[in-house]
Amino acid sequence: MQDVRPLPHYLIQRYHGWRATTYAENAAWYRRLAGEGQHPRAMVIACCDSRVDVAQIFGADSGELFIHRNVANLVPPYDPDGDYHGTSAAVEYAVTALKVAHLVVLGHSNCGGVKGCHDMCEGHAPELEASTSFVGRWMDILRPGYKRVKEAGPADPLRALENEAVLTSLENLMTFPFVRDAVAEGVLSLHGCWNDIGHGGLEHYDRKEGTFVPV
Amino acid sequence: MQDVRPLPHYLIQRYHGWRATTYAENAAWYRRLAGEGQHPRAMVIACCDSRVDVAQIFGADSGELFIHRNVANLVPPYDPDGDYHGTSAAVEYAVTALKVAHLVVLGHSNCGGVKGCHDMCEGHAPELEASTSFVGRWMDILRPGYKRVKEAGPADPLRALENEAVLTSLENLMTFPFVRDAVAEGVLSLHGCWNDIGHGGLEHYDRKEGTFVPV
Amino acid sequence: MQDVRPLPHYLIQRYHGWRATTYAENAAWYRRLAGEGQHPRAMVIACCDSRVDVAQIFGADSGELFIHRNVANLVPPYDPDGDYHGTSAAVEYAVTALKVAHLVVLGHSNCGGVKGCHDMCEGHAPELEASTSFVGRWMDILRPGYKRVKEAGPADPLRALENEAVLTSLENLMTFPFVRDAVAEGVLSLHGCWNDIGHGGLEHYDRKEGTFVPV
Amino acid sequence: MQDVRPLPHYLIQRYHGWRATTYAENAAWYRRLAGEGQHPRAMVIACCDSRVDVAQIFGADSGELFIHRNVANLVPPYDPDGDYHGTSAAVEYAVTALKVAHLVVLGHSNCGGVKGCHDMCEGHAPELEASTSFVGRWMDILRPGYKRVKEAGPADPLRALENEAVLTSLENLMTFPFVRDAVAEGVLSLHGCWNDIGHGGLEHYDRKEGTFVPV
Repeated sequence: MQDVRPLPHYLIQRYHGWRATTYAENAAWYRRLAGEGQHPRAMVIACCDSRVDVAQIFGADSGELFIHRNVANLVPPYDPDGDYHGTSAAVEYAVTALKVAHLVVLGHSNCGGVKGCHDMCEGHAPELEASTSFVGRWMDILRPGYKRVKEAGPADPLRALENEAVLTSLENLMTFPFVRDAVAEGVLSLHGCWNDIGHGGLEHYDRKEGTFVPV
Repeated sequence: MQDVRPLPHYLIQRYHGWRATTYAENAAWYRRLAGEGQHPRAMVIACCDSRVDVAQIFGADSGELFIHRNVANLVPPYDPDGDYHGTSAAVEYAVTALKVAHLVVLGHSNCGGVKGCHDMCEGHAPELEASTSFVGRWMDILRPGYKRVKEAGPADPLRALENEAVLTSLENLMTFPFVRDAVAEGVLSLHGCWNDIGHGGLEHYDRKEGTFVPV
Repeated sequence: MQDVRPLPHYLIQRYHGWRATTYAENAAWYRRLAGEGQHPRAMVIACCDSRVDVAQIFGADSGELFIHRNVANLVPPYDPDGDYHGTSAAVEYAVTALKVAHLVVLGHSNCGGVKGCHDMCEGHAPELEASTSFVGRWMDILRPGYKRVKEAGPADPLRALENEAVLTSLENLMTFPFVRDAVAEGVLSLHGCWNDIGHGGLEHYDRKEGTFVPV
Repeated sequence: MQDVRPLPHYLIQRYHGWRATTYAENAAWYRRLAGEGQHPRAMVIACCDSRVDVAQIFGADSGELFIHRNVANLVPPYDPDGDYHGTSAAVEYAVTALKVAHLVVLGHSNCGGVKGCHDMCEGHAPELEASTSFVGRWMDILRPGYKRVKEAGPADPLRALENEAVLTSLENLMTFPFVRDAVAEGVLSLHGCWNDIGHGGLEHYDRKEGTFVPV
């Protein structure tokens, strides 16, 4: 491991700050969390975007939210082909081992992954169409969403595609047998929401309205 | 989307708390982040575990850390087979599009994914060996690490395997051409660390010592 | 007071959320409650259990319910021996000073205190029989209820003992002269109910049926 | 149980409202709480006063806070005399069985119990001095606090006595061997705070300042 370097100094300094304040004030809780294991109530699937702080938005304390973050908060369809599936593994662990009660897909405004998908589907991003592009192939999950947006022709197609990223993930979640069964048994519920980064807004999907509405 | 429900009330109430405090105090910054896009300095690859709060440990402000979280903070080897690769897509986006300067793999104590891998490799978790187990197949990434631990025979094999999860990910990161190139050019550095949940400790990999040492 | 620490950060953040939403929307009411004093219509005696949220179940607004919570929602018999009696003091204050119209004893399913009493009475919890065990001595209040359950031999003895915890408390309430007098004058009524945590059920005692029935 | 009546209709109607909304949206969580038992992070000792909604102020979800409420949020000194001690039983259960990480004593403004204690100590409430007064004997716990206030001669003696109610409880908590031991081991921390009902304020005890300061 000749290429591994020590942590940058600024991260070490901040860690010591956290250790001396938040950790020190909550040491008993951290020890208990270590001893008893985690019992999170919800899993949140969010984007890796540095501007989306899931734990803060949902006022979450250590131990409350099992958080998976990937590009554009996507869930691929069920496909047990024996290969590596990081997102599917996270969902399986949350639902079958941790038995979370809620699965929340959190999208957001200004999403670079969604914009890349839009550019690619419009033919403006040939580099993403290359078979070797991991981002391009990952965003293929959202192609059906792109088609729906194209047909609907909304005023703000990027915003519409961000919503589709949430809805597509929710649809794909229901293709997993263990998700479908838990929902049918009433021990798991699915939720979709979208965060407006600039305005600090939060909307969630309302199935009666068939659209996203402010919470 | 008949199965999608409104957000649980307690999350909505907490969101309003965040909106009225953290967001309100930093609205100018959030608006600028929305307008200018993100420019995170580092990417962190961490576990989904609800007890690991990456942003808090590293004192990160909105916009600072591009965070990918999956089960056991693993990175699979480079394999551009045209399939969905969420982790590889996140790394590609961080390194080639966002041009982060640091790639930090953050492991942690009491990791359920690592323990599952250990049980599976010891033959005590047949359900994880099933070809349909997403968690089992995902943890296959760590099998080479298990073999190294088995040969070394350390006093605490789970702790050793948690360290191997970090080192295996770092090794696999170097199999990605765009990571290797960025490291060679000196525009990207790799870092490995491990968080002790109960004691609030943080160790990082020291290449001279060939082991993890407290920061 | 060298051992007292500041409030944990997560509670402070949530408090600010409450301040900015619920309090802000109802400031006039809170100010009036502070100025005029409380005039609650009912007192509820419930368990400390974190899963029983009295105010939510009864849709109570600030100022409506005077709430005493102790282990297993028990009321000891009348015994003015000059010692500290927290439960008796709460009942006395509610009935003679606040003149509440209703006294509601609320039991619940999965009650750890009731289970402890059952184990103790069956001889399976010697640590609760120690004279220094506060929980054991407190649960002695329910020993007569245990005997009735033992004689009746119901299919679900724990559920039956949870009901007895409510009935024993109601019986003991009637040993207080000021309770008995207020009931006789028709200015106070007693009520017993039981909450099924998992199913969200609520049953109340029906004196005609001599048992608990769903509301 | 001839004196027990059905629940008042208005409470039944509100219960159905809760069942149809909050419960329905969170049924999976309630079922899991019933199945797995409670794991509350903190115990709160608060007043029965109908104007203090502990769960709301601390944004608590079902399962988060073990709540004991008595008149004036008092804890008596350690005294294992084999008698009924509701408050001591609740503290013992929280610390030794549930292993909560935080013990929060929450006082409040306009406290009728504290005012009664003040009147009694000043000789203006002879009815509370009767040996048969449960409220009077319960408020005896606060007599040492009254003496300290009297000596200090603050501008607002009632407010000062409300603070003393919190501090006296914290001092008495430290007379319990199992509390003292858990604090010494670093697995339990004590906190004192005070809620201004009319203004929605919250102050906590700052040991450096030796007084209560806004959070």
